[in-house]
Amino acid sequence: MAKHLFEYRNGEDIELPLLIKSADIRIAKNGKKFIALILQDTSGHMPAKLWDASDAAIEQYKAGEVVHVRGKRELYNDNPQIKLYGMRLATQEEGNDPKYFLERAPEKSGDMEEDISSFVFDILNPNWNRIVRKLLADHHDAFFSYPAAKSNHHANGGGLAFHTLSILRLAKHVGEQYPNINVSLLYAGAILHDMGKTIELSGPVSTEYTVTGNLIGHIVLIDEEIIRACIELKIDSTQEDVVLLRHMILAHHGLLEYGSPVRPQLPEAQILHDLDELDASINMMTTAVAHVEGGQFSERLFGMDNRRFYRPEGIQHLSGSPKE
Amino acid sequence: MAKHLFEYRNGEDIELPLLIKSADIRIAKNGKKFIALILQDTSGHMPAKLWDASDAAIEQYKAGEVVHVRGKRELYNDNPQIKLYGMRLATQEEGNDPKYFLERAPEKSGDMEEDISSFVFDILNPNWNRIVRKLLADHHDAFFSYPAAKSNHHANGGGLAFHTLSILRLAKHVGEQYPNINVSLLYAGAILHDMGKTIELSGPVSTEYTVTGNLIGHIVLIDEEIIRACIELKIDSTQEDVVLLRHMILAHHGLLEYGSPVRPQLPEAQILHDLDELDASINMMTTAVAHVEGGQFSERLFGMDNRRFYRPEGIQHLSGSPKE
Amino acid sequence: MAKHLFEYRNGEDIELPLLIKSADIRIAKNGKKFIALILQDTSGHMPAKLWDASDAAIEQYKAGEVVHVRGKRELYNDNPQIKLYGMRLATQEEGNDPKYFLERAPEKSGDMEEDISSFVFDILNPNWNRIVRKLLADHHDAFFSYPAAKSNHHANGGGLAFHTLSILRLAKHVGEQYPNINVSLLYAGAILHDMGKTIELSGPVSTEYTVTGNLIGHIVLIDEEIIRACIELKIDSTQEDVVLLRHMILAHHGLLEYGSPVRPQLPEAQILHDLDELDASINMMTTAVAHVEGGQFSERLFGMDNRRFYRPEGIQHLSGSPKE
Amino acid sequence: MAKHLFEYRNGEDIELPLLIKSADIRIAKNGKKFIALILQDTSGHMPAKLWDASDAAIEQYKAGEVVHVRGKRELYNDNPQIKLYGMRLATQEEGNDPKYFLERAPEKSGDMEEDISSFVFDILNPNWNRIVRKLLADHHDAFFSYPAAKSNHHANGGGLAFHTLSILRLAKHVGEQYPNINVSLLYAGAILHDMGKTIELSGPVSTEYTVTGNLIGHIVLIDEEIIRACIELKIDSTQEDVVLLRHMILAHHGLLEYGSPVRPQLPEAQILHDLDELDASINMMTTAVAHVEGGQFSERLFGMDNRRFYRPEGIQHLSGSPKE
Amino acid sequence: MAKHLFEYRNGEDIELPLLIKSADIRIAKNGKKFIALILQDTSGHMPAKLWDASDAAIEQYKAGEVVHVRGKRELYNDNPQIKLYGMRLATQEEGNDPKYFLERAPEKSGDMEEDISSFVFDILNPNWNRIVRKLLADHHDAFFSYPAAKSNHHANGGGLAFHTLSILRLAKHVGEQYPNINVSLLYAGAILHDMGKTIELSGPVSTEYTVTGNLIGHIVLIDEEIIRACIELKIDSTQEDVVLLRHMILAHHGLLEYGSPVRPQLPEAQILHDLDELDASINMMTTAVAHVEGGQFSERLFGMDNRRFYRPEGIQHLSGSPKE
Amino acid sequence: MAKHLFEYRNGEDIELPLLIKSADIRIAKNGKKFIALILQDTSGHMPAKLWDASDAAIEQYKAGEVVHVRGKRELYNDNPQIKLYGMRLATQEEGNDPKYFLERAPEKSGDMEEDISSFVFDILNPNWNRIVRKLLADHHDAFFSYPAAKSNHHANGGGLAFHTLSILRLAKHVGEQYPNINVSLLYAGAILHDMGKTIELSGPVSTEYTVTGNLIGHIVLIDEEIIRACIELKIDSTQEDVVLLRHMILAHHGLLEYGSPVRPQLPEAQILHDLDELDASINMMTTAVAHVEGGQFSERLFGMDNRRFYRPEGIQHLSGSPKE
Repeated sequence: MAKHLFEYRNGEDIELPLLIKSADIRIAKNGKKFIALILQDTSGHMPAKLWDASDAAIEQYKAGEVVHVRGKRELYNDNPQIKLYGMRLATQEEGNDPKYFLERAPEKSGDMEEDISSFVFDILNPNWNRIVRKLLADHHDAFFSYPAAKSNHHANGGGLAFHTLSILRLAKHVGEQYPNINVSLLYAGAILHDMGKTIELSGPVSTEYTVTGNLIGHIVLIDEEIIRACIELKIDSTQEDVVLLRHMILAHHGLLEYGSPVRPQLPEAQILHDLDELDASINMMTTAVAHVEGGQFSERLFGMDNRRFYRPEGIQHLSGSPKE
Repeated sequence: MAKHLFEYRNGEDIELPLLIKSADIRIAKNGKKFIALILQDTSGHMPAKLWDASDAAIEQYKAGEVVHVRGKRELYNDNPQIKLYGMRLATQEEGNDPKYFLERAPEKSGDMEEDISSFVFDILNPNWNRIVRKLLADHHDAFFSYPAAKSNHHANGGGLAFHTLSILRLAKHVGEQYPNINVSLLYAGAILHDMGKTIELSGPVSTEYTVTGNLIGHIVLIDEEIIRACIELKIDSTQEDVVLLRHMILAHHGLLEYGSPVRPQLPEAQILHDLDELDASINMMTTAVAHVEGGQFSERLFGMDNRRFYRPEGIQHLSGSPKE
Repeated sequence: MAKHLFEYRNGEDIELPLLIKSADIRIAKNGKKFIALILQDTSGHMPAKLWDASDAAIEQYKAGEVVHVRGKRELYNDNPQIKLYGMRLATQEEGNDPKYFLERAPEKSGDMEEDISSFVFDILNPNWNRIVRKLLADHHDAFFSYPAAKSNHHANGGGLAFHTLSILRLAKHVGEQYPNINVSLLYAGAILHDMGKTIELSGPVSTEYTVTGNLIGHIVLIDEEIIRACIELKIDSTQEDVVLLRHMILAHHGLLEYGSPVRPQLPEAQILHDLDELDASINMMTTAVAHVEGGQFSERLFGMDNRRFYRPEGIQHLSGSPKE
Repeated sequence: MAKHLFEYRNGEDIELPLLIKSADIRIAKNGKKFIALILQDTSGHMPAKLWDASDAAIEQYKAGEVVHVRGKRELYNDNPQIKLYGMRLATQEEGNDPKYFLERAPEKSGDMEEDISSFVFDILNPNWNRIVRKLLADHHDAFFSYPAAKSNHHANGGGLAFHTLSILRLAKHVGEQYPNINVSLLYAGAILHDMGKTIELSGPVSTEYTVTGNLIGHIVLIDEEIIRACIELKIDSTQEDVVLLRHMILAHHGLLEYGSPVRPQLPEAQILHDLDELDASINMMTTAVAHVEGGQFSERLFGMDNRRFYRPEGIQHLSGSPKE
Repeated sequence: MAKHLFEYRNGEDIELPLLIKSADIRIAKNGKKFIALILQDTSGHMPAKLWDASDAAIEQYKAGEVVHVRGKRELYNDNPQIKLYGMRLATQEEGNDPKYFLERAPEKSGDMEEDISSFVFDILNPNWNRIVRKLLADHHDAFFSYPAAKSNHHANGGGLAFHTLSILRLAKHVGEQYPNINVSLLYAGAILHDMGKTIELSGPVSTEYTVTGNLIGHIVLIDEEIIRACIELKIDSTQEDVVLLRHMILAHHGLLEYGSPVRPQLPEAQILHDLDELDASINMMTTAVAHVEGGQFSERLFGMDNRRFYRPEGIQHLSGSPKE
Repeated sequence: MAKHLFEYRNGEDIELPLLIKSADIRIAKNGKKFIALILQDTSGHMPAKLWDASDAAIEQYKAGEVVHVRGKRELYNDNPQIKLYGMRLATQEEGNDPKYFLERAPEKSGDMEEDISSFVFDILNPNWNRIVRKLLADHHDAFFSYPAAKSNHHANGGGLAFHTLSILRLAKHVGEQYPNINVSLLYAGAILHDMGKTIELSGPVSTEYTVTGNLIGHIVLIDEEIIRACIELKIDSTQEDVVLLRHMILAHHGLLEYGSPVRPQLPEAQILHDLDELDASINMMTTAVAHVEGGQFSERLFGMDNRRFYRPEGIQHLSGSPKE
């Protein structure tokens, strides 16, 4: 079977089919147009530039197309990129269905669904349980296929469900360690907290913000879904437990500056925010560090206040759990 | 007929019925309890302190009670207060219905209703028009009796409707002066923008935040009402016009730091925010300046970044419109 | 008569005389120089790039020159630009006077002057009236020809007077709606608030900041003019009314961070600041939205915290005043 | 056996021995002195005021003394306090050793020591292991008896060790869930991160900052201890693993504004900061919520941006782990 | 001769004449009025409280009066205060002229004048020299008697001139050490930078902000004086050297947030700001540290970001210049 | 002897040997690589670009190499640069030792050492004196050859010692002017404050941050050196005088945001911070202004909040000390 993109080494010649993740037309300082591409397969994504792009090329090479690429992997500002020798559209025979080229969460959709179901089972408050079940069903396909964000963290197919599941697992340990925490509320909030992204974002391929996403935002969009669920399930939304659940979602960005209309006023709401940040940070940091050699700093991470992270030189063998 | 509270002058003896707007129990530095009262009638409100308060007094003198007060108006830190000589509960015969003692907006409820109706008439988009009509009907009584805020600006009975109407009048002029503005959208947004306060606050007497008000906030509470109205009126809420209306309300605090989950992204949404601030500021500043003499600075206004405002000494006769 | 710049459509060939608004020499990444031009006529301005510029071309094509341009209108990052085919200096016979190519405020200079005069008439305090009249006379030509800013808002010929007039019109309505406002003070402050820009900026063509503008700033420059006017008119500047007028100008940026040496401490000073911001915002937002199609977001506006504004798709017909 | 302080209910008469946690002399507005006391036993601490305090009383009732107290528990601003009827120093026979009155961490010192030892066992890097072991031994007594902070979170005897242990337990789960994390580094950093507080603070009774604590701070004080340990253990401190360990401690406040001289630049350093915050927050929030009734908001928490947290009214029975 | 206020020690009985620096009427929590006094003589100032103040006492004991005081020096929150036993107005015979009780700068007015003159002599640019000479003459009496601020730093008689002189002395050394600095400009800016305080403040006794001071501010007030001086001296104020001098004054607060309408854009303007801050800081810190014992921290200094400063215990003998 | 780099004028042809200070590989918008060079000799440094760089050229032209350059000095964005005609490596015969091409502090190393020694002589506290002497000896070579920063201020060979000496000279005057300052402490702090840069930075040629420098920072690195010195010199580091000295260094960045783990709490610590900033600012500003013509603004200075500084047009002859 063919090698994947990230299995090539620096300086090595490349020849493989890749999906165009994004394609921006820019004008070079010599007055000619070029296409700034991001190309991907399931192993990750890498930038490439198509210089002196003709109008035909611009028409042809759009986000969502699968292309057959020849080139060389090289380093630019310490980050890998593809120097293009040639490129053409892949044919149907070669396999040009975008879904086979998406980066994917590290667990299978079916496994994740099963795991999340077992967490739903532990939501003991009946109103929370019914609302969560209904919204999981309503948004099932998008929830298990969308990324958790346009870029930043978990920006891959299934990333939304995987990020949700990671938070649930952390939440379970927190519930065991601090017995006064209402675990049912924490689970219900965790499952719904980012589900509005299925409306805010355009989908798993060539992800963009929708107009509704820009003007309303995923926090209020999922709040709307909870209200609609209450009406359909004949749950009185003025009851305290529904108000608490809505508060969990509304407050989960932690600070007003980050787009939450209210700050966390329940211990569980603050904890959901903290676990959300923790999981997103770990995802961003470990991904970045994995892309550099020992003794090097990663690229600057926009989502981590533009910091670089260091990969130690001499102690990799100690990484991992103490059992290793 | 009896004099009102603000018709007494400094040093003058006072004897009149007043409503207890708020009553906080505190412990004096000599170890005894006292009640920090705010007393009001339709002319305004003033603080007073009942020293060495017995348990019976604490039980009796609560927010919402009408009391018969004897004392003297005096100045404390340049602000008027009542030095109490004596106080007792008013009897039913004397008239102890709180509603006759509330400060009120300067226009009558019926007049305001009529004026607002004529603005509704000018909302030409049918979805916006129907949603606004329905919510005005649903929240009619609270909308025309609640204050616009717990303290700060328009904190009086009918203040919510009066503040809304003031914004509509400014909006009309803006619409005439800048022809590209969508006036229908501006009117619909203005009428609904603070209507969630009828759920966020407890009512016109002894106004407090409700638990739901604290945990959800008036911005999302009125968004919920719009969604419910759409369902009942069978309006598809994914249509652009409904999204635009919701955006008007969600963005009206202008900045994320002030509790809007999204920033204004329509000219009309930015203008609604600006007019909301302008009307609230003018209300706070002119009220504060009216309470001091010429040549003096007002007390510091919390809602205006703690600034003091100056009342000129020599040029009062020029105030007001150029026709004077 | 010839078509104007903004009457051409995307993809259409262009041939017309244009004024060079600015011309920056830059070095392309191929090591050769190019000129980044902004070209304008009365319909607006658009960028263009002259590649591989010779020293002769650099010498010739400077801000303030009128050139004869051949090219094509195209889109770059969703904004229109001119792709140049050829360019030469216009001859005197063809008409190369810059003044015929300046974007202009939407009202005629004479009409604006008449309108502003009628506002001056309503300034009832004699000192304010005399100071305003004198400074309007002293700075007459610049006041009616300068832009209100180098870029951002009202950056066109006559923009300063038009911005001033817009504020006066808003001020009139505010004065009618809130009777305690001193309208004379508001008018006087509005007329003078930005008049220092006639000294801070270099003029209506190729507008730059002067050295004095950078080191002193337009707020203090007009304060100087008020002092000089008092001396000449034998008005005692320690009188309260002169202090109030100076405060109006000094405080009109609202916050110290925006360059006001004192914060507004008069209701009228706060209102002037608010109306100044409101008019500038509406100008920036409506101009930006007018340049994009329905269903699109505008470019990011530096003067509006880098936000983009949305132009609705389906409801243009409702725009404008309710009479439509 | 006698009742503890927090076993009395509001309005109930109190008679029991208590430790003076702090005693501030203040002057009442009637000109007389009073002592603002905080009294405690192992169940928690509560304020009380001794009015009209004589010089003898001031001399006698100091922080660290055990007193015999008669009074009544009552509410002030929704928080419990003791209204004093009488107070005298406890005799040696009654038991006046402060250590029997300190609030204590919820686990026994010996158990905590055993648990922490098992984490040390899992630190696989020999340098980190030896440094941690040595410093744990050097600071053994203080480490297991000091609070984690003067006030805010874990401000009780043994709080420092308990807070450390809570972070280690969270760290274990994070290590299991994210396999690329270096758990040895995370454990070593967690154990040392706040150990400098044994030098920064004065001790478990009447905790104050030392002069050295104020001028150097606990972050640099423990860094000094690491350097001294390296010298004694003949470990070359320029080796990468020692630099990494020092970075873990130096960066653990997360932001420069919070007193870290460098920001986290290792994933493990960021995670240590996040878990530190998470454990401290949960401790503060759950303690505050436990002190109020259902349906009430807690007092404002200084360490949580002055927020109040809500204790739900109707759903206590759901609290705790899903097994309940 | 009688002892001065700060020559008494804690616990010692006091009997001496003092000037009332300020007298605020407050209401005690027992409902009675008291006067919060600040009393001073040339050795410094100390607070005292007159409890249960009658209307006659309030009328009598105002800022600016000299009183004969009996009491005791004691400590309150680590700061000294006077516990009053008795107080009466001083008679003319006893000496009740406020000027003999003002704290004064450590150098004599005549000496300071001479020193400042010698700096004026070194201002080589004729325009700067003439403007400085004229304004020093115009504001002579106030300049040499006013404090440099209402409170904070150099808040004593002659403080303005002494602060100015201290900056000039620092400026001289800077000029010698960095030869590219224009010393003439630095001297001229230093002498004028705070001269506007002679208009902004009410005077050396019971110093308050004037209305003009509040609404215009001392920065713009001295700018006005420069303009008036230019007119009188027939200096063209559009010349570069005058613009530079005005910039020095306008920019001397360093940041817009601190009230400068423009930021420093000349090296000399930045240096003036830095030396101004340096001298004010040293004055505040050394004054505060001088009031506490070795081994103690000072009170918190509002003008130094609320920090406390430490007075070392064991090394006083090393203080001062290396010659000691 | 050959001309130096900054002795060539704009437009003049250049031919001379230069040191490559830095060499960044970038990709031009035409897809080809170029090298962005900074070239220097003792007169200063200037940028140049080598277009269409071959792999051999990239291999050859690295930071630290001496090259023989032919080209032309020209202006780009008002700043000088070299337009390259040709470039080759210098031979050993031509002199290719980097040390002869480094910009150097304006005083000789030996003179600076002597001057600093005389300041050490005036440190009267024996512990401070011994620690300073030992660390000066330990870091002697680096201290007198390193720059004070990677870029920003004093970024030249010997810059660290020169910056230190400039602060000492300012400190001497401050000590003379304010007699309560402990000059010994100020001198000791000044000499050590930036000495950690000898570990934080890689050296005088092609200066970079070391990994240890990034992860620990120069403030904590010199604190470590003080601790090691105490151990070696058998000084008890818990003594107050050692704590004070460490505080001087730890607090010298002034604000936590700037990387100090504690804020200055000694007058001497605040003064050291202020003098550090003052000397760095003057160095940056005067260097920038020296590079432009009269009547021009300098480039924007990153280290001065991105401000530009103005070089006056008409008054250069007045610059310098008043004796001129």
